[in-house]
Amino acid sequence: MSVNRQIHLVSRPDPATGPSTANFALREAPVPQPGAGQVLLQTLYLSLDPYMRARMYEGANYAANAALNAPMVGATVSRVIASRNPGFVVGDIVESGHGWQEYALSDGTGLRRIDPSLAPISTALGVLGMPGQTGYTALLRHGRPGPGQTVVVSAASGPVGTVVGQTARLMGARVVGIAGGPDKGAYLTGELGFDAAVDHRAPDFAAQLAAACPDGVDIYYDNVGGPVFAAVLPLLNAEARVLVCGTVSVDRDRPGTGPALGSMQDLLSAALVKRLTIKGFIYSDPDLMAMEPDFRSTVSGWVRTGKLRYREDIVEGIEAAPQAFLGLFSGANFGKLLVRVHPE
Amino acid sequence: MSVNRQIHLVSRPDPATGPSTANFALREAPVPQPGAGQVLLQTLYLSLDPYMRARMYEGANYAANAALNAPMVGATVSRVIASRNPGFVVGDIVESGHGWQEYALSDGTGLRRIDPSLAPISTALGVLGMPGQTGYTALLRHGRPGPGQTVVVSAASGPVGTVVGQTARLMGARVVGIAGGPDKGAYLTGELGFDAAVDHRAPDFAAQLAAACPDGVDIYYDNVGGPVFAAVLPLLNAEARVLVCGTVSVDRDRPGTGPALGSMQDLLSAALVKRLTIKGFIYSDPDLMAMEPDFRSTVSGWVRTGKLRYREDIVEGIEAAPQAFLGLFSGANFGKLLVRVHPE
Repeated sequence: MSVNRQIHLVSRPDPATGPSTANFALREAPVPQPGAGQVLLQTLYLSLDPYMRARMYEGANYAANAALNAPMVGATVSRVIASRNPGFVVGDIVESGHGWQEYALSDGTGLRRIDPSLAPISTALGVLGMPGQTGYTALLRHGRPGPGQTVVVSAASGPVGTVVGQTARLMGARVVGIAGGPDKGAYLTGELGFDAAVDHRAPDFAAQLAAACPDGVDIYYDNVGGPVFAAVLPLLNAEARVLVCGTVSVDRDRPGTGPALGSMQDLLSAALVKRLTIKGFIYSDPDLMAMEPDFRSTVSGWVRTGKLRYREDIVEGIEAAPQAFLGLFSGANFGKLLVRVHPE
Repeated sequence: MSVNRQIHLVSRPDPATGPSTANFALREAPVPQPGAGQVLLQTLYLSLDPYMRARMYEGANYAANAALNAPMVGATVSRVIASRNPGFVVGDIVESGHGWQEYALSDGTGLRRIDPSLAPISTALGVLGMPGQTGYTALLRHGRPGPGQTVVVSAASGPVGTVVGQTARLMGARVVGIAGGPDKGAYLTGELGFDAAVDHRAPDFAAQLAAACPDGVDIYYDNVGGPVFAAVLPLLNAEARVLVCGTVSVDRDRPGTGPALGSMQDLLSAALVKRLTIKGFIYSDPDLMAMEPDFRSTVSGWVRTGKLRYREDIVEGIEAAPQAFLGLFSGANFGKLLVRVHPE
């Protein structure tokens, strides 16, 4: 334990081709020593999430872009292995945001303590973390699901979709999940209790989706954009809510490379005629953050009692992060994608 | 007074070319005689509104399409000239919806009595009617204007835009109106108190609009769609509200004939990154209808005290309706477009 292996962002993606493993490099640094007030963190799990793609580019998205020649940004679950901070003792488990590296220092700012007795600690990056919070709070606030309504969610077997679909089901709605391939579909209906699942890779996807939504769609929680969005649009009922959470299927920083959709005017006309509400958001919006206590108590209760299930896709070792990350955009992962950096 | 001149819809528009005067024909019928429980109405003003275009086509929009070989649909202000209904006396002024004709029978259903002492009766079709109600209720509920915010409204000198802009101003917001030509712009800033006006026909329209919105745009009340929308989109601030009220600049029933806009994905990406709310609506939405009493008392008070001003564009005679109606879509009118069918 003297070398701190890190994955640096070493170049920005070529907008014509998008991110590649060549944008990343494994670098080694000494494991740092905590100064007064600091703790040394050992990374146990690194979260890989779609939002990271936008950070790789030059342009800002929600936040500043990731720096070059520094560890790529990301959330982690870590263990305190040395402490000169009175607020932490060796062995504490914390959620942190120190990126793609094996060790890091912290003065305690931004660390969130995790109680391992409540749920597996990895869930702090998935159904009980930012993705789950994004799914739960936005669905309830902007979607308002209830009995008699049909909720469609894309990227349904991922950590956001998992929470969206099961929350909607627990609220009494009919739930249709969109995911790639038969295994994910079988998981959604067999394990998670979705009413139907549709494979967006099927040649007759749009027809299958229409058949799965005989009463139309009242809420569409969109994690992907692109042609899946185009297939949902004609099924939307009057006064439907469209929650725009992500565009994993297309790269917004690569103009012209996305799949063909209708024009902006088609969406405006649909919004007008169907009186749609189309809502973009981020989990840190103040109105959604105000729901965090409700999210934590409700969803952790559902996880503890088995009412809400989830799946993780864990790859081993920090060196595996770049390739696994790129797989997010082709749907290669099945469940919440994590890197196990060190054993628990 | 024995002939009832009517403008019938006699054919549906060719989707390739859009509506034309050839879709209408002047027909004559006998003036009907009221039966028991009926009143005979003499049309004083006929309202010409953009929504009528969609009714001309085969496909349904909000409502069923207009019937062929019958008077074209439309709202009117009329005088009771004969009554066999105990609820009405000769001389009563009512708002009705009996379409493009000089006389009509009614059993009283759907008639709304107008008090001529409160405001000019023609305003029941404009700032104190459906257009004004659409502007006021949706702006307040979905836009939430206030001090420090910038509101942009298109078709700003029309009856919806007039009410939107002046309501926003009275709520303390900075107001920028978009209209076609220098006369309308001078009216907006000179008569209505808008902070700025921009001519969408100017070659440097987008640059002028950006200059008029130095702090970005918090609320865009869109009556036109098309390239004006495209110019507003990059100016939208985080958490901006986009109110989709109309698409007067493009014909949604003519696929492919609209002006080039970005793709639907561009709008979804903007919604995501800027956390936009894009809201389509119609004035009869239940949440907006619940605001009707507030609208009537507030806006009629503003009209009475001169706080809210308006302009009417009146053409003479039922036979002038088709040509005047088509001018709505090229911005030929200046103010609320009305046909004076009979003198008050």
